[in-house]
Amino acid sequence: MCWFGPGDVRVVEVPKPTLQAEDDALLRVTRAAVCGSDLHALHGKIPKLTPGTILGHEFVGVVEEVGSAVRRLSVGQRCAAAMYVACGRCPQCLAGRHPRCSEYAMFGMGDLMGGLAGGQAEYVRVPLAEMTLSPIPDPMADEAALFTGDILATAYTACEESGMGPGDLVAVVGAGPVGLLTAACARLFGAARVYAVDPIAERRELARQQGAIPIDPDQGDPVASLRHLTGGARADVVIEAVGNQPALELAWRLTATGATLALVGILVDEPWPQSAGQAWLRNLTIRTVIGQPYRHRQTLLRLIESGLLQPQSIISQKVPLSQAAQAYAAMDARRTLKPVLLLG
Amino acid sequence: MCWFGPGDVRVVEVPKPTLQAEDDALLRVTRAAVCGSDLHALHGKIPKLTPGTILGHEFVGVVEEVGSAVRRLSVGQRCAAAMYVACGRCPQCLAGRHPRCSEYAMFGMGDLMGGLAGGQAEYVRVPLAEMTLSPIPDPMADEAALFTGDILATAYTACEESGMGPGDLVAVVGAGPVGLLTAACARLFGAARVYAVDPIAERRELARQQGAIPIDPDQGDPVASLRHLTGGARADVVIEAVGNQPALELAWRLTATGATLALVGILVDEPWPQSAGQAWLRNLTIRTVIGQPYRHRQTLLRLIESGLLQPQSIISQKVPLSQAAQAYAAMDARRTLKPVLLLG
Amino acid sequence: MCWFGPGDVRVVEVPKPTLQAEDDALLRVTRAAVCGSDLHALHGKIPKLTPGTILGHEFVGVVEEVGSAVRRLSVGQRCAAAMYVACGRCPQCLAGRHPRCSEYAMFGMGDLMGGLAGGQAEYVRVPLAEMTLSPIPDPMADEAALFTGDILATAYTACEESGMGPGDLVAVVGAGPVGLLTAACARLFGAARVYAVDPIAERRELARQQGAIPIDPDQGDPVASLRHLTGGARADVVIEAVGNQPALELAWRLTATGATLALVGILVDEPWPQSAGQAWLRNLTIRTVIGQPYRHRQTLLRLIESGLLQPQSIISQKVPLSQAAQAYAAMDARRTLKPVLLLG
Amino acid sequence: MCWFGPGDVRVVEVPKPTLQAEDDALLRVTRAAVCGSDLHALHGKIPKLTPGTILGHEFVGVVEEVGSAVRRLSVGQRCAAAMYVACGRCPQCLAGRHPRCSEYAMFGMGDLMGGLAGGQAEYVRVPLAEMTLSPIPDPMADEAALFTGDILATAYTACEESGMGPGDLVAVVGAGPVGLLTAACARLFGAARVYAVDPIAERRELARQQGAIPIDPDQGDPVASLRHLTGGARADVVIEAVGNQPALELAWRLTATGATLALVGILVDEPWPQSAGQAWLRNLTIRTVIGQPYRHRQTLLRLIESGLLQPQSIISQKVPLSQAAQAYAAMDARRTLKPVLLLG
Repeated sequence: MCWFGPGDVRVVEVPKPTLQAEDDALLRVTRAAVCGSDLHALHGKIPKLTPGTILGHEFVGVVEEVGSAVRRLSVGQRCAAAMYVACGRCPQCLAGRHPRCSEYAMFGMGDLMGGLAGGQAEYVRVPLAEMTLSPIPDPMADEAALFTGDILATAYTACEESGMGPGDLVAVVGAGPVGLLTAACARLFGAARVYAVDPIAERRELARQQGAIPIDPDQGDPVASLRHLTGGARADVVIEAVGNQPALELAWRLTATGATLALVGILVDEPWPQSAGQAWLRNLTIRTVIGQPYRHRQTLLRLIESGLLQPQSIISQKVPLSQAAQAYAAMDARRTLKPVLLLG
Repeated sequence: MCWFGPGDVRVVEVPKPTLQAEDDALLRVTRAAVCGSDLHALHGKIPKLTPGTILGHEFVGVVEEVGSAVRRLSVGQRCAAAMYVACGRCPQCLAGRHPRCSEYAMFGMGDLMGGLAGGQAEYVRVPLAEMTLSPIPDPMADEAALFTGDILATAYTACEESGMGPGDLVAVVGAGPVGLLTAACARLFGAARVYAVDPIAERRELARQQGAIPIDPDQGDPVASLRHLTGGARADVVIEAVGNQPALELAWRLTATGATLALVGILVDEPWPQSAGQAWLRNLTIRTVIGQPYRHRQTLLRLIESGLLQPQSIISQKVPLSQAAQAYAAMDARRTLKPVLLLG
Repeated sequence: MCWFGPGDVRVVEVPKPTLQAEDDALLRVTRAAVCGSDLHALHGKIPKLTPGTILGHEFVGVVEEVGSAVRRLSVGQRCAAAMYVACGRCPQCLAGRHPRCSEYAMFGMGDLMGGLAGGQAEYVRVPLAEMTLSPIPDPMADEAALFTGDILATAYTACEESGMGPGDLVAVVGAGPVGLLTAACARLFGAARVYAVDPIAERRELARQQGAIPIDPDQGDPVASLRHLTGGARADVVIEAVGNQPALELAWRLTATGATLALVGILVDEPWPQSAGQAWLRNLTIRTVIGQPYRHRQTLLRLIESGLLQPQSIISQKVPLSQAAQAYAAMDARRTLKPVLLLG
Repeated sequence: MCWFGPGDVRVVEVPKPTLQAEDDALLRVTRAAVCGSDLHALHGKIPKLTPGTILGHEFVGVVEEVGSAVRRLSVGQRCAAAMYVACGRCPQCLAGRHPRCSEYAMFGMGDLMGGLAGGQAEYVRVPLAEMTLSPIPDPMADEAALFTGDILATAYTACEESGMGPGDLVAVVGAGPVGLLTAACARLFGAARVYAVDPIAERRELARQQGAIPIDPDQGDPVASLRHLTGGARADVVIEAVGNQPALELAWRLTATGATLALVGILVDEPWPQSAGQAWLRNLTIRTVIGQPYRHRQTLLRLIESGLLQPQSIISQKVPLSQAAQAYAAMDARRTLKPVLLLG
């Protein structure tokens, strides 16, 4: 599945990748998801993307071949990939700041982010394979592990970095893929109640299935709805999981005095809803969140194993690779929530 | 319900208590539980207990009268009491170490612990009422709030102080009242799986209802059972909720290398299962836990309100005050799990 | 020292206060400081301030009289006051959120904040005295304890809430009283280096005496100076301790990618230096900080006792109460850093 | 410097090591320290030690040669080694539990710990070099960085894992190399006072130079001394840095009710000073500590750069490699504190 220009993504034949370093592995992909950030590529918003770039950074598969320095992975092993590569050994990685590793490279995002071919393909070369790939424990399904390297890790990181704890009232703005998984993760941190705001009825229903209390923004001001539901309170932790100006505005208003607002949705140049002075007077804490798959992947796999997380429940559509372009279009039109490409 | 000597507890008529200080309240008790530590009194193991002492430190009721300095409580308000009194204002209280407050006094435990009459009675005088009593939010039932001042707070404290986090494998030794509530609380900290070991089938069944995986110690070594269930691992966090030597031995053995053992059951002079050197070689952390109702009561009330905790589910028997002695006897014989006295 | 209108503060004779509740104490003040927020009063920026209000919320003294419910304080005892009153017993106080207590009242700030007479006076009535007053351990000087109830607690809270830890590079914008004490406190959290930016040479010199590395903003862009000093890095934690727009702008720019910006200086309606999107792209955490004397007072007293903190070193001037108006004027003109009024 | 049997350590000629894997480096050693655990080898207490094993796991040097997969290190670069090898990429390493990595191998400790030749030699082969070696920033001296891979990291880990915080009273039992560095690190966590107990006057003097208050156990019971110095209190955190039964006994007794005892000295089969019941009644937390160089090395290098840590101050003697056996003997007889071998 390659990008050729804004609006032009197509499945084409490309050469099978080969190992390039001793610590590479070749992965035969079995499932690849389309991520919201792939739509940024579709829209031509990723700088320096070269036509012909293979897209995709959420994928799982089977190890096909390993380099000579790969000791812990074996051919035939099922693995989930992290969305980006990091070395695990430099000061940044050792401090848990993997996104700032000098070896950082994201799959399928072009030269600006390391020029690594993506995983919406039959095969993908995986650098630093022992780090990047995480074996999927039997009998976990490939689809259950598919999101551990990207959006599930992002959702979990948002909950963890927000400082959420038992008894908190949590509001999530946006019940898209990240928002839904955030609602699911919030239960693991003991949130007393999770409120999920989304204008789309199907998404609110999914939120309800994740244990959240849905709020429809078309039925009156969500802040009023929240206050009504809580007996007057706003949220102790608010997570903005959309990434645009109206969502940020709403998230800001849902946040109680002295509470925390975590910004997970990608923002670029959106203005603040209120001044710094007003943030001070309301005693807010504002955290911007970047997903940390390397920190949390093992925890997430354990929670999926135990059944406390069922991230595959957000998969809305499964199509063969050949229909990837249609899946992009459907997701872009919000006709489908989270499409997955079937391979192998 | 008064203590007159080892094995001799009886319900007798006593004068109705009166306010003694401006910040006292008089509580008309509606429900009082029998606690495991009341059995220590029954057995004559509480030093300096004066014959005639009214027992009981787990109770809820309705405010009957307040002193002149009580501003935030009003007559008729339903409240849950904490098991002991603390001032909230001294350096110890401000540091969250309420059990070491100089005003510390426990209800119904005799002169060694402040000489305060207990709550297994129609009325009880409550010192420092604005601190000691916590209003029960409507429409929460009295019985749902009954344990927030003692064993539920203890169970929660055990989880919190053990450092438990999402994905952990947790083992609880003993599915008595505290063990069951510990299993329930562990889910709020994201425990991937909670294993509960108890020889009594009914208690294992209750543990299962709390979401735990029961282990029967009479069906082989529980360590082997745990390893079988986890694919070889022992527990990341073990909570000893019995308070005797065999339970401590078992808890020790269930603890993984590098893991934490939290001791909640009351110990007095039990020896260690292994030497300090062996603890070092296994890299254990050992925490002794004292329940902290003042730190956690509000969080617990919120979690009960939201339905994430249903502590009343462990109530095994409800009897009128007049049958309190029989309830003590039944609990002592392990014929009943957690009896509650009905008053008012 | 009373406020009569914008620019009009004067020392006048007023009646000696008397006890009004059982838990009040009467304090004979020995030292009272002028705080930056008193200048807000001077300038008429405190809403609803009644002419004749006694100012001052940083003071220490000797207990002159206690109400009947005050058990732990005795006449003649030296005590430091917290800047505001809180009950210690409500859910907000028990959760450590004393500024949101329903009994909250600040000394000397008028009806908006509880209408409590201030401490720049010979005597002051202190409500909830066992909570509000903290005994000064011998042989600590009154002046050493003077700031524990306000600006030293604020400085410490800023360090603590910023998440600062050993090895961090810390920048403090503003070497006024709060900034200097923040620099001092940062050493207690292991900051590898503390950089203090201030245009006034005397304040930079004081910062140097607190162990900080001073940066003069009139000698080139402080961000360039910081990068030069650190070999290219910006700060892991930046603390804005001024409370105006230029300081906020500078603090923002000094903050490294992925780092934390703590806002201690009082802001009202200042705009943000950059958009929310830019904060997201730089992965910032922004914390607004309110000082927490009740949480940290005992820790601070211990650190002063041990000599690790010497907050009295920032006192720039000591004058009798009769010269309080001149002290206000000098502080307002930045001719003096932190004047203290001598009483008793 | 090789081990040939109990009591028999000698410097002999051995072949220069060569690279064995793509990610190896060859280090030309410039400084190697003798560690307390080397004395265990001397005494024949390390199981499965093969005669001829090169000893030493605290060393720094210059990169002489790198394997083809080593990208971030270059020939000529000065580096400090961690005491053991770990991969940085497996679940254990990513969870910060490097000592449990499947690639774990300690330098100079024989086959039981991976069979890696030690660093008390002119050259040493360093596996996983980008992980194991940490560049020494100019102009830091080799000797200043020498302990970051072992005892300084251990001392720091002890402070961090003990939960020590600002204002704490800390007691360190044993002012040997680890104890002295623990005393130094405790200041970085804000300890109000650090008390160091050691019977050797020179060590107490060194402790004093690290900012600690020395206690001589030959001048009366150290618990009485501590109480005298603190006005009656015992320590909030006690760190046992010797590793034998009397030290453990003393550490136990120095620990306040509700406080934490951290065990850093290596224990093998020493009994507990008191029963588990007594630990419970005293509400102790007991933590066993293993040094974590990979977690803390960068922080330590920053603190050394800033001058807040000067670990080289504990070096008691510098001798050429040829006198290594004498250095062992002197250290074993406690005639010297921390000898360093000069190479290159």
